[in-house]
Amino acid sequence: MADKKNKKRALDDEDDDPQHVPFKRRLKPDQSILKTLQTLTKSVRSASSSSKTLTLSDLSLSSSCREVSDVDLSSVQSSIERLVIRTALSILSNQGFAFDVPLRTSANQLYVPELDRIVLKDKTSSRPFASLSTVRKTTITARILQLVHQLCLKSIHVTKRDLFYTDVKLFQDQAQSDAVLDDVACMIGCTRSNLNVVAAEKGVVVGRLVFSDNGDMIDCTKMGMGGKAIPPNIDRVGDMTSDALFILLVEKDAAYMRLAEDRFYNRFPCIIVTAKGQPDVATRLFLRKMKMELKLPVLALVDSDPYGLKILSVYGCGSKNMSYDSANLTTPDIKWLGVRPSDLDKYKIPEQCRLPMTEQDIKTGKDLLEEDFVKKNPGWVEELSLMVKTKQKAEIQALSTFGFQYLSEVYLPLKLQEQDWL
Amino acid sequence: MADKKNKKRALDDEDDDPQHVPFKRRLKPDQSILKTLQTLTKSVRSASSSSKTLTLSDLSLSSSCREVSDVDLSSVQSSIERLVIRTALSILSNQGFAFDVPLRTSANQLYVPELDRIVLKDKTSSRPFASLSTVRKTTITARILQLVHQLCLKSIHVTKRDLFYTDVKLFQDQAQSDAVLDDVACMIGCTRSNLNVVAAEKGVVVGRLVFSDNGDMIDCTKMGMGGKAIPPNIDRVGDMTSDALFILLVEKDAAYMRLAEDRFYNRFPCIIVTAKGQPDVATRLFLRKMKMELKLPVLALVDSDPYGLKILSVYGCGSKNMSYDSANLTTPDIKWLGVRPSDLDKYKIPEQCRLPMTEQDIKTGKDLLEEDFVKKNPGWVEELSLMVKTKQKAEIQALSTFGFQYLSEVYLPLKLQEQDWL
Repeated sequence: MADKKNKKRALDDEDDDPQHVPFKRRLKPDQSILKTLQTLTKSVRSASSSSKTLTLSDLSLSSSCREVSDVDLSSVQSSIERLVIRTALSILSNQGFAFDVPLRTSANQLYVPELDRIVLKDKTSSRPFASLSTVRKTTITARILQLVHQLCLKSIHVTKRDLFYTDVKLFQDQAQSDAVLDDVACMIGCTRSNLNVVAAEKGVVVGRLVFSDNGDMIDCTKMGMGGKAIPPNIDRVGDMTSDALFILLVEKDAAYMRLAEDRFYNRFPCIIVTAKGQPDVATRLFLRKMKMELKLPVLALVDSDPYGLKILSVYGCGSKNMSYDSANLTTPDIKWLGVRPSDLDKYKIPEQCRLPMTEQDIKTGKDLLEEDFVKKNPGWVEELSLMVKTKQKAEIQALSTFGFQYLSEVYLPLKLQEQDWL
Repeated sequence: MADKKNKKRALDDEDDDPQHVPFKRRLKPDQSILKTLQTLTKSVRSASSSSKTLTLSDLSLSSSCREVSDVDLSSVQSSIERLVIRTALSILSNQGFAFDVPLRTSANQLYVPELDRIVLKDKTSSRPFASLSTVRKTTITARILQLVHQLCLKSIHVTKRDLFYTDVKLFQDQAQSDAVLDDVACMIGCTRSNLNVVAAEKGVVVGRLVFSDNGDMIDCTKMGMGGKAIPPNIDRVGDMTSDALFILLVEKDAAYMRLAEDRFYNRFPCIIVTAKGQPDVATRLFLRKMKMELKLPVLALVDSDPYGLKILSVYGCGSKNMSYDSANLTTPDIKWLGVRPSDLDKYKIPEQCRLPMTEQDIKTGKDLLEEDFVKKNPGWVEELSLMVKTKQKAEIQALSTFGFQYLSEVYLPLKLQEQDWL
């Protein structure tokens, strides 16, 4: 037995790349890293209790920008009913009818630095039934209103795909029903989730979190390695409690699995969450809900490439397509923990594990440098400039080159210890 | 309140397409449908207890076919050690060295009707180190053996992506390390999961199932709407118990979500599982484990297109790429419940919800008609021939045309009542 242990140790050491031993040696005892984290959590909590979240009206923007709010099902139902009665009255008084629809084009979007998110400006366009160019879209709008009204009465959720299939002849393709669905949320002034139409679920969560999903209490420390699938409908999620010190937002599921198997959340109390790539609406809502209710710092672990930063920005500042609901969909103050372009040299990632950026990558990187939400953060500008200059990118998995558990046992603990986030 | 209820009922009725009312009327009380299901479950149980699962050796094929078995981590470790010692001895006796690698090309595959799955024949090819054409692949093989040996010692799981990144310089791209990983499983005679290398997880499960995931007990009736993510590593899954009467295998997550929200498993005790499209290894292993331990019938709900049937066949008979492990990866006797080509007329799916098949669809359909596993089942041949003849396909979601809950409240109960599976 002792022999086997020795053998194991010998192999462990052999497996340690000499290049990364200095990093391992720099690690202080966990207790000291935990203290660092406690300080971080405390500062986030005191900041969130002392400072009020800024709103459009604080900035006197509420008249020139449009924002939806999170309302309950019966409000959606009565809004639709009022809208339909107005329409009927208009028809009965021989005026015909038109829907007044908020414009969602790029020209009607605005990044507000004080809020650190993209919002929708207040331009609308009229969608009259009695016009050849809009009669179809007006009909689709009326049909979607009717279908959402049915969902309110039945109190059920459906997918965007289900919605499309209820009237294929009219909608023709799903892009049309999807787009009008966002229009309808804007018109009513509610979130898309309030309409009870959801997209496919993708995200998973594991770690120090207990919450209720449709009435069932879920303890995410008891979800094995697979974790808990994030529910598609946030309105059935509640009662969040946690003893975590931070939320670790992970871009991809390979890194998520490593951390889940190693039960990283037991060594450093945290909640680990991933949308497995592009952030979906359900994961974005779930992350925000955790941040708001638990008042925890959010640290992001993404690939060192322009898309990693873009993903971080969607969680943080929102996407243009759903800017009308950025207040509900975005999570303020996400920190970029890694893998950052400067980490590649700092942690001596071997050349062969770095990848050359393609022309498209470089263009995306340069475009990002022009975005307000990047410019706002000098540290991010510096990192992104370095990436574009060196023309090198790397995935989180590149850290495996130093051993499979380097990510969970050396890289992340060291990052936390040195408070190395931006 | 009463007023609201009446209003709701009125709307419900209005919402009922007159075309589908006859189907709803045909539904008997749930108690009678449950009896049908109990009979099915009983027959599956008695069949599985009386008949032994056929193996290659029962068919005297074990010498001409190659099959791996499910072994524990220490066996994998000692197999690798023996292989390496043999290699070292060969080098020391001036013979150089070569790995003997089972061939996994199409020509070395065989569909065995008695087993109803694809198996690998026994041809191997030599991979000598001292040959320009194979020196690289031999080196990769040795490196993968070394890495897997490390995983055995540490008793951890990694993803295929992690494995690739441990030596990018040698592997060059992930397809190369992935392919050799399957070679190594064949050489050792174990499953790919035994090597502790997993792919990303995709599947989810909900319903009448309790199991342990890495030591945590999971009750899948208490997983809300989101369900439980299927763990990437089947060897940490155990202690399955269930009072379900059947397993409902669903191709896509839109249908899965409808059934999960409606808690279909409470009305008809079942376990609902989906891989959200193409079946991944973890979901295939999980399905088989459920089938084998719980001895439940498996009913499949897939799109009515060639890919739906193809997906069904991967669950049932396996894929060519992993035929060496078809015994562990395939679930015998899956019934095709729906949506079947004949359902389109039977359930009066409107023309606009059916889609014309593309040239590629039709070709895939015709190719499937030539496959042994389809030919074996006359009912399937008939359905597929109808599809190719009518050149029409339809998604499961097409049923939403009759109302969002038509799938869970009419179509599936009626299918079960009429024992309409093949």
